[in-house]
Amino acid sequence: MGSERAEPGTIRPGGRTARVRAAVLRAAEDALIEVGFSRLDLTDIARRAGVGKTTVYRRWGTVTRLMADMLLEMAAQSLPRTETGSLLSDMQAHARLVQRTLADPRQGALFKAVIAAAICDSRAAEALHRFYDIRIREWAPCVEQAIERGEIPEGTDPCEVVRAVSAPLYYRLLTTAYPLDEAAADRAAEAAVAAARAGVFRRPLASPSQP
Amino acid sequence: MGSERAEPGTIRPGGRTARVRAAVLRAAEDALIEVGFSRLDLTDIARRAGVGKTTVYRRWGTVTRLMADMLLEMAAQSLPRTETGSLLSDMQAHARLVQRTLADPRQGALFKAVIAAAICDSRAAEALHRFYDIRIREWAPCVEQAIERGEIPEGTDPCEVVRAVSAPLYYRLLTTAYPLDEAAADRAAEAAVAAARAGVFRRPLASPSQP
Repeated sequence: MGSERAEPGTIRPGGRTARVRAAVLRAAEDALIEVGFSRLDLTDIARRAGVGKTTVYRRWGTVTRLMADMLLEMAAQSLPRTETGSLLSDMQAHARLVQRTLADPRQGALFKAVIAAAICDSRAAEALHRFYDIRIREWAPCVEQAIERGEIPEGTDPCEVVRAVSAPLYYRLLTTAYPLDEAAADRAAEAAVAAARAGVFRRPLASPSQP
Repeated sequence: MGSERAEPGTIRPGGRTARVRAAVLRAAEDALIEVGFSRLDLTDIARRAGVGKTTVYRRWGTVTRLMADMLLEMAAQSLPRTETGSLLSDMQAHARLVQRTLADPRQGALFKAVIAAAICDSRAAEALHRFYDIRIREWAPCVEQAIERGEIPEGTDPCEVVRAVSAPLYYRLLTTAYPLDEAAADRAAEAAVAAARAGVFRRPLASPSQP
């Protein structure tokens, strides 16, 4: 991350620097949802946040760096994984968290906007990839524990199982007008777990078996 | 679709009207890839296509209608399904077609751009949903035949199985920097078929069973 991650001015939690950052990141989210990445403007974001534009330019410099910081904060604010002792229940919790996030009007619009931003800008894409990497790794231990319990085969790629849960929810959001409901979340979890049990996510990639 | 679908001026295949349409749609693809939906401009597209701007404005009127026509043509030009007699082989063919399309530099950039457009514009989103609906329905008979052959349970939702094959490939494209290779395609097909065999895609949505 380099400089996007650094918070040299933070003196104490809840101090002025932290409050400025929170206000600017919130304003950046609003602007991203309203006008989209291609029309983001640091001066407009500073105005929305009630912060001097010099502060915003000095601290973030570019909209891409501001978006990268926003995604880091989104990752930091995300809920931790749930560990229930069953892979299906854990992946259902993961699926429902993704579903609730994407179905929420503000969060859903924000995630769509950052995906659009990542399509338009390679630096934004890198920041987005880091965000998903953090979130996927957060849930990977649930899969590792399922391997240890013997629920799914040795050699299963934990991150691929976690991604398989998220994928149908994002695909549904982006390519259909169908509702993103709990039934869709549960089905996504069940499908990923069924495939994991069948050994599909073993590393290295298995060659396709014939039925 | 309404007026976007109509081609009132087409006199014969390969005639002047068809040539104009092909040139404008190609130019629209180029512009979408290069500048993105938010900066699309019919005058610029007409110039790229070597066509009078009056023709473009009279025929399509707005960039959204032009994009809708572009997506209809993309659906019409897409390859038909493959029927091999095995669900896994059919879904592998589907997955590899999606993978080749998304991994192709021009096609991949075009699909990303239309997804970004759909995020920014609800009319563009409707056109994108129609595109995917056409493509998913094209492959659904492979799943119906697998049900008839007894490969997967009665009551399986064919379109959900086909979508489950595509989803991980789009998710990989949009949220990671990992290569979209044949191994990823084969794994997507295997995962969807394993879940279908396990009865995950039966209608109505099954409540999650405990392991």
